[in-house]
Amino acid sequence: MTNDKYAAFRALHRPGTPLLLANAWDVASARLAEQVGSAAVATTSAGVAWSLGAADGGGLDSDRAVDLVARVAGAVAVPVTADIEGGFADDAAGVAETVRRVVAAGAAGVNLEDSGPSGLLPVDEAARRIAAARAAAGAGLFINARVDTFLMGSGDVADALTRARAYVAAGADGVFVPGTADPAVIAELVAGVGAPLNILAGPGSPSIAELAALGVARVSLGSSVAAAAYAVMRRATEELLTKGTYDTLSDAMGYGELNKLLA
Amino acid sequence: MTNDKYAAFRALHRPGTPLLLANAWDVASARLAEQVGSAAVATTSAGVAWSLGAADGGGLDSDRAVDLVARVAGAVAVPVTADIEGGFADDAAGVAETVRRVVAAGAAGVNLEDSGPSGLLPVDEAARRIAAARAAAGAGLFINARVDTFLMGSGDVADALTRARAYVAAGADGVFVPGTADPAVIAELVAGVGAPLNILAGPGSPSIAELAALGVARVSLGSSVAAAAYAVMRRATEELLTKGTYDTLSDAMGYGELNKLLA
Repeated sequence: MTNDKYAAFRALHRPGTPLLLANAWDVASARLAEQVGSAAVATTSAGVAWSLGAADGGGLDSDRAVDLVARVAGAVAVPVTADIEGGFADDAAGVAETVRRVVAAGAAGVNLEDSGPSGLLPVDEAARRIAAARAAAGAGLFINARVDTFLMGSGDVADALTRARAYVAAGADGVFVPGTADPAVIAELVAGVGAPLNILAGPGSPSIAELAALGVARVSLGSSVAAAAYAVMRRATEELLTKGTYDTLSDAMGYGELNKLLA
Repeated sequence: MTNDKYAAFRALHRPGTPLLLANAWDVASARLAEQVGSAAVATTSAGVAWSLGAADGGGLDSDRAVDLVARVAGAVAVPVTADIEGGFADDAAGVAETVRRVVAAGAAGVNLEDSGPSGLLPVDEAARRIAAARAAAGAGLFINARVDTFLMGSGDVADALTRARAYVAAGADGVFVPGTADPAVIAELVAGVGAPLNILAGPGSPSIAELAALGVARVSLGSSVAAAAYAVMRRATEELLTKGTYDTLSDAMGYGELNKLLA
C-alpha cells in the first residue's frame, strides 16, 4: 500500500453507507478490529494515551504517539487513521511536523481537533493548522477535522457549521462532530458541512441504520471500547480481591488465539 | 522505595494468606490494579507482548519489555513484579543482563520461566540461569521461578518438585507452577517446594479461600485478564459491524475517570 491506501481509505467515506470504526488503542486491539472485518483501523488518542501511561489531551509525548501509529500500521493490512489530538503541538508548524511523522509512520488518515488544554481554538487558528497539515501531507492523507463545539463550546449547530466549512476550505477531507446524538442536529450537519460527516456513537446513540439513513459517512466509537476493556481489568481485580473468584474472566479470548493473531 | 520495596514485596508472600495479583499488561491496567487495592502489580508477559504487537514466548524484544516495566514502575506506588518470560535471552549471561536492566527499571520482583520456544530447558541449564539472575540482581529482587512441567512437560508432580528444589537451591525466592488446578497436587507442591508457592488461577480453579487453605502464598491470573479485555474489543467490533449497535460498551468506565487515573 502506497498511494493506493489513500485512495482506498478515502473511498470508504460514503454518505449513507458509513465506514464503521471501533477504535483501537494498541496493536492487539488493532489486529482484532482487522480480524473481525473492519475496512480500516482508527486509533483513539485517549485509549492510546491511557495504555501508554498518560492522560488524553496533551499528556502523551509525540514520539510515543508516532511510534504507536507505526506499530499499528505495520501490523494490519487495512488503512490506518491516527487520532493525533491537536497535533501534539502549539502552533501550525508543530502540527505540520507531527503530520509529516505520522504519514511517514504509515497513516492513511488523521483526526485533528480544534480544541486543546485551554478549550476551543479560534476558528482562524484551527483552520491555519489544518492548512499546515494539508501542506505537510500532500493530497493523499485523509484529514478528518474534529469540531469540538458540542464537547466544549456553544453546542450550537450554526457554530459547528461555521467551523466545519472553514476547515473544509482549509483542506480538510471530512468533518468529525462528536458530542451530539440528536438526529435533527445530525441531519443539519450532514446537509451543511459539504464533506463526509463522522459521528461519535455509543450507548444511547442512534443505531448505524439510523445514522446511515441520516447520511452519515463515518461512525466511530472513540475511547469507549478501550474504556470498556479497562472496566474488565477493574472488575476482575475487584472480584479477585473481594470475592476470591474469577467469573469476570469466563468469556476471555483464548491464549492461543491471541498469540496466533500477534505472531 | 529503594530497598524497602524489596522487603515490602517479599513480605507479601505468606503461605495461607496469598498475595493476589490480577496481572496488568500496560500502564492503565497497572494503575487500575493499584486503585482497586492490589498490594503489588504483576505484569503478564503475554498481555504485554500482545499489547505491543508480538506473540508471547520470544516475540517481544527486550528493549520494549524493559521500557514497559519502567513505565509501570514509574506509574504506581506499590511494588512491581515483571514477567520476563525466559529472560529474553538464550543463555545465563543474557538472562543476567535482562535482570540487571529490569532491576534498573524499578522492578521489585521477576518471573523467570524454565521453558522457551523449544520446550522445557534441562533443569541444570534452567538453574544456571536462575543463579545468574540472582548474582546480577543482588539479594533484594524476589525471583519467582516458573516450573513449566504442567504446561509442556510430564505433568508429573515429582518432576515439578525436582525442578522447584533445584531453582530454590540456585537462588529463587518463590516457585510458580502454572497448569494445575488439582487441590491434591497443589497440596503436594506446597509441602514439597520449600518456598512460597504461586498458583495460576482462573475459571475452574479453586477459589482463593480454598487455595489459601492449601497453603498457597501467591495467586495470579496470568494473561487471562488481558484476554478478557481484548474479548471486549472483539465483541464491540462484531456488534458494530453486524448489528449496528453498541450494547457491549454499556459498562465502560468513564472517560473522565480514566483520564484522572492517568493524569
